Amino acid sequence: MNTTTAPHPLDDALALTALAPGQYQGRTTEAYWNMVGPYGGITAATLVQAILQHPECLGEPISLTVNYAAAVGAGPFTLQATPVRTNRSTQHWTLSIEQADASGALVVTTTGTAVTAVRRDTWSACDIPMPAVPPAQQFERAMLHAAAPQWIHRYEMRMLEGGLPTRWDGSGDGSLSRLWVRDAEPRALDFASITAMADVFFPRVWLRRTTHVPAGTVSMTVYFHATSAQLQATGSAPVLAQARGQQFGNGFFDQTAQLWNADGVVLATSHQIVYFKE
Amino acid sequence: MNTTTAPHPLDDALALTALAPGQYQGRTTEAYWNMVGPYGGITAATLVQAILQHPECLGEPISLTVNYAAAVGAGPFTLQATPVRTNRSTQHWTLSIEQADASGALVVTTTGTAVTAVRRDTWSACDIPMPAVPPAQQFERAMLHAAAPQWIHRYEMRMLEGGLPTRWDGSGDGSLSRLWVRDAEPRALDFASITAMADVFFPRVWLRRTTHVPAGTVSMTVYFHATSAQLQATGSAPVLAQARGQQFGNGFFDQTAQLWNADGVVLATSHQIVYFKE
Repeated sequence: MNTTTAPHPLDDALALTALAPGQYQGRTTEAYWNMVGPYGGITAATLVQAILQHPECLGEPISLTVNYAAAVGAGPFTLQATPVRTNRSTQHWTLSIEQADASGALVVTTTGTAVTAVRRDTWSACDIPMPAVPPAQQFERAMLHAAAPQWIHRYEMRMLEGGLPTRWDGSGDGSLSRLWVRDAEPRALDFASITAMADVFFPRVWLRRTTHVPAGTVSMTVYFHATSAQLQATGSAPVLAQARGQQFGNGFFDQTAQLWNADGVVLATSHQIVYFKE
Repeated sequence: MNTTTAPHPLDDALALTALAPGQYQGRTTEAYWNMVGPYGGITAATLVQAILQHPECLGEPISLTVNYAAAVGAGPFTLQATPVRTNRSTQHWTLSIEQADASGALVVTTTGTAVTAVRRDTWSACDIPMPAVPPAQQFERAMLHAAAPQWIHRYEMRMLEGGLPTRWDGSGDGSLSRLWVRDAEPRALDFASITAMADVFFPRVWLRRTTHVPAGTVSMTVYFHATSAQLQATGSAPVLAQARGQQFGNGFFDQTAQLWNADGVVLATSHQIVYFKE
């Protein structure tokens, strides 16, 4: 056994120490650092991880909403995951992350809610079939900009359409992006990693306007359609991720997103509302 | 002044008495009763109303997530709306509804989070233009089934497509519904009423399967795109409401929805995940 093997950077970022029932200590890692705080997807994934580690967790994640109240600062944080209502087959969670501010007082940086459930085999249908796109291996891995934040290096992205503009000339007329994405260092898919991938898209306003303006996610919701077995079966193969803006104005826009595995299985759908400037 | 005029049934359902900062007492009303509890849309609207009545409320609603942990029982309930983080132009809220159970103990029936913000005029664009549909007056008001729950009588609905199946024969092949909807008793649109309307759709699984199975919303998110002025300007005119299912399986499906006024202004977008049986 090679005890010097470093953990996968995602597992390292998700590492939590239980302090009390539902209370955990975590800390940010450089590997998933964004501009002024950790990548929003890793914060969301850490909340999911806390639920899954909770000894009273019933079933598997069905929905998650994360509200980014403030940037999480570099260093330790306290995460609270509380099962406030447990029914026969569903369980409702409240979530928060707190961190000491400059004066040492604990302040809320993140709020959220989640639902877990025991899923049963039922009738099924898909009204969002995976678009007919060529397989991942037919696309080059996206070149990373020298100034790209750390977290982007944690993903292998292959853009099919709607890539980051190369000229910020205001010529944009659509907001649809499609990419094949997987962890750059291979890791079998699970609820935490699919949660993180749901936030992998750059702000739709950059694409739609072809103008670079400050933007940041305010709230994200993820609906989980796959079971842990379906995620596990996807392994470390690329996931097709698609996002589109809906309405932009008065300082905010919303985005809808879908994630499929290469077999066309819908793994998750997601929505977010994003602040933008001017 | 005619003091005997009854309040609008929506205002009656939204009536809250402040007990302490952020703590309110409300009660269910028969007018919005569903099968085993109040209409989910009225519960969501009541949470928005509590935020707007809070003396510390900053700006206007941007997003709301409501989790239906258990049916609210007939009678009084306690609602808590807490601004847990107030930034320069955004404010983050946690929300809950509690009710006494049979033993008299307070239990959580509803959880939620919301974001309010001071909105500023910015660049805008719409990537979900209103579908080209005939105006509301060209459609008959939908006939109400004798067994329809009370809340349905509170809306004037005119179905354009994807109406409630008349034969439950399993022949369904799509999940898109479009309707013109407004309060049956005219009332100028506001954040509470547009929130309630975001839940106006019958379960997509009924349409998709053309099979009547038990179903209930587990979690709903609403993103508000209109300002209070735009809602006010819409007045009591019909709103075009559109919903579509995405993925159905393992006991749950999700729905995306959009609401426009007749001028094509996007008022809100919404998503929900819904439990269904078998």
